Amino acid sequence: MKQLLVFFSFVVILTLLSAFTFIQKKKVVFFGDSITQAGVSPTGYITVLQQMLVKDGRDKGFDLVGAGIGGNKVYDLYLRLEDDVLSRKPDLVFIYVGINDVWHKKTYGTGTDPDKFEKFYNKIIDKIQDAGAKVVICTPTVVGEKKGFVNELDGDLNKYSEIIRNIARNKNVELIDLHKAIVEYINANNPEDKAKDILTSDGVHMNDKRNQFLAEQFYQFIK
Amino acid sequence: MKQLLVFFSFVVILTLLSAFTFIQKKKVVFFGDSITQAGVSPTGYITVLQQMLVKDGRDKGFDLVGAGIGGNKVYDLYLRLEDDVLSRKPDLVFIYVGINDVWHKKTYGTGTDPDKFEKFYNKIIDKIQDAGAKVVICTPTVVGEKKGFVNELDGDLNKYSEIIRNIARNKNVELIDLHKAIVEYINANNPEDKAKDILTSDGVHMNDKRNQFLAEQFYQFIK
Amino acid sequence: MKQLLVFFSFVVILTLLSAFTFIQKKKVVFFGDSITQAGVSPTGYITVLQQMLVKDGRDKGFDLVGAGIGGNKVYDLYLRLEDDVLSRKPDLVFIYVGINDVWHKKTYGTGTDPDKFEKFYNKIIDKIQDAGAKVVICTPTVVGEKKGFVNELDGDLNKYSEIIRNIARNKNVELIDLHKAIVEYINANNPEDKAKDILTSDGVHMNDKRNQFLAEQFYQFIK
Amino acid sequence: MKQLLVFFSFVVILTLLSAFTFIQKKKVVFFGDSITQAGVSPTGYITVLQQMLVKDGRDKGFDLVGAGIGGNKVYDLYLRLEDDVLSRKPDLVFIYVGINDVWHKKTYGTGTDPDKFEKFYNKIIDKIQDAGAKVVICTPTVVGEKKGFVNELDGDLNKYSEIIRNIARNKNVELIDLHKAIVEYINANNPEDKAKDILTSDGVHMNDKRNQFLAEQFYQFIK
Repeated sequence: MKQLLVFFSFVVILTLLSAFTFIQKKKVVFFGDSITQAGVSPTGYITVLQQMLVKDGRDKGFDLVGAGIGGNKVYDLYLRLEDDVLSRKPDLVFIYVGINDVWHKKTYGTGTDPDKFEKFYNKIIDKIQDAGAKVVICTPTVVGEKKGFVNELDGDLNKYSEIIRNIARNKNVELIDLHKAIVEYINANNPEDKAKDILTSDGVHMNDKRNQFLAEQFYQFIK
Repeated sequence: MKQLLVFFSFVVILTLLSAFTFIQKKKVVFFGDSITQAGVSPTGYITVLQQMLVKDGRDKGFDLVGAGIGGNKVYDLYLRLEDDVLSRKPDLVFIYVGINDVWHKKTYGTGTDPDKFEKFYNKIIDKIQDAGAKVVICTPTVVGEKKGFVNELDGDLNKYSEIIRNIARNKNVELIDLHKAIVEYINANNPEDKAKDILTSDGVHMNDKRNQFLAEQFYQFIK
Repeated sequence: MKQLLVFFSFVVILTLLSAFTFIQKKKVVFFGDSITQAGVSPTGYITVLQQMLVKDGRDKGFDLVGAGIGGNKVYDLYLRLEDDVLSRKPDLVFIYVGINDVWHKKTYGTGTDPDKFEKFYNKIIDKIQDAGAKVVICTPTVVGEKKGFVNELDGDLNKYSEIIRNIARNKNVELIDLHKAIVEYINANNPEDKAKDILTSDGVHMNDKRNQFLAEQFYQFIK
Repeated sequence: MKQLLVFFSFVVILTLLSAFTFIQKKKVVFFGDSITQAGVSPTGYITVLQQMLVKDGRDKGFDLVGAGIGGNKVYDLYLRLEDDVLSRKPDLVFIYVGINDVWHKKTYGTGTDPDKFEKFYNKIIDKIQDAGAKVVICTPTVVGEKKGFVNELDGDLNKYSEIIRNIARNKNVELIDLHKAIVEYINANNPEDKAKDILTSDGVHMNDKRNQFLAEQFYQFIK
């Protein structure tokens, strides 16, 4: 009888604990393009983030979810916001988009005008905040890794980064200035002035060993 | 006394009739780009439609509303669908968009990919139908009026017209094939093979006397 | 002795004939882009033309030379006109260019403006004619094989074809209207309305069995 | 009599000197786009250069000729090199081109690929040098005057400037690094970070009072 009581107490405590854990576990959604789609691969930046959380013993507190689709621009995120983000009832959403909005101007003639970029971006933030989640936004990384802003799209990437920095200020949301960070990293680590192979495999997508770099940029914002 | 009774009966009947009319008055929204924005001007196609309704004594039955903004592409319509269309509780919505989706590829590098065009278009239809309104969709008119498909964007405009025709079939919504109608009109009425001044003032926007043409295409669908 | 005389007479006649043939052998240069570059491959259209000449016993009269380079636009031809064509002292030059002038607008933002296209084209003809050679010009083939001018670039390809037809008229040079021929062929032979695999392997480049089609268009102009 | 002799000697010497001067007068051609076309206007940079020469008493030594045409790209210069430059038998040619090669990618889809840009540029230099003239080449100025490389085309303008700097090195010709000079000037003189009105009236074309800036960049190379 006493054993049974102990057993039941144990069950109750476990249940309470797991309930507690369940309640506390924050859902973190990474909302973006092909870089984020690759982020959940075995070496991707979201996987690295997960490993960092494990190492720090913080992994019980967070549920990291990748919601990246290749080729996505800001308005593609808006189109699938409800299905891929809000329906998951996130606590925290990272928005990491902008490269294709610039790049596709050149490759397909289907990039995004800067004023439209800003409009859709703001509306996405509004809808996520209305759903009660916190938003952290990121400037785009790079297309080409040469130094001195001589990569063809550097001017436009700087311009869209500025737009995102202004949105962060105006909306008072946290900003991960990936563009600034990656440009500084490249300036310090690209002595031969190569167009790729510093942080990226092709000028755009993170190479395996460098997902660490990206993960570190996000890490402190997972809280 | 008898006269007074007659008078009051008349007032009551009128009131009932107007109430009935008020209840019956259908809200018709024209959702589109600069052509629709200009549609509500004194000579615009929506104004001409209104005059046609008056002439036929049908104007009491319909409330025509213009919801066009210059430069809009399909995703711009999606962004402002709630505010500019659904909030008005329409009975009937005409979607007339597509020129800028093609044209801006060339002029700004910010057109719309065909697969994205289709996705946003379908989603707009779904949301309008979910709100209980009927949808009628239109193929885009033209950019340039030369015959024989020698205008630079003719191929792509044909392609996007095909996409819209397929959407109409798949979703079983009514279609106004403006592109077909205008191409036929131009073939029959442009003996000198001019690039503009047949139905348009600049190759794109309707000239004043020709809003009649556009209004006639819409007229039978106002019911 | 008599036999020897006969033999020698025979040799002399043969020598004279071959000398005559040698003198008469016309140098024919095909000046163009990747389609012409592939034209000299074992199944290419220039190789097929050579085989047609052999079959008709006319091959001794002509020396066919391919001068195609992938990605070339009209101004690229102009840049290498001296080195790749005029230095070979041709009797007849086919100019077959225009697809990349249209296509690269979309894929790289580096197509050719129509007025510039015309200017360079005219200058190339002038320089070849000044060098004493005959010129035959061709309209561009296609990008995509769907019917009804719904391929994205159909309008612009029609436009540039018109420019070339006008050049032929104005300069009084012979024209091979490849664009017209291929569009007619596709209309008659593409019942499933496929985007490729009728005459091309990818919408642009001739598939092996269909180089015959292209060769036939050129054949009558080799004279 | 002696005085007369002295006088005549003086006249003869003067005549000889002026003849000598006439022979020595160097023909300087400015070969470029709309900026150079506007350079010969009453306030244009070539006019300002002429005034600087007058002020320094060096105007007798040089004949400044503008050969700029609006919208020109590197291959347009190549097309009219013979007619507009070489036929004038220049001693010195400034090549100042590149903005439209970058800009028209976006506005018309008809910019110039970097490898083609280099090829045409080199060929122009070769032909001018073969004609016995000296060549001085210039990096392009700007499209937009905001600081920190946030103007849309800054990356590509930097890239094409690098191409020109490399050509100068490889061909051992003198370079006027206008791009570097104007960027430095803007960084120092645009405290409000405006997009135009610092050195340009529209982000591209020099405003009146600032043609002085451009003229000063060229001045020391007129020798």
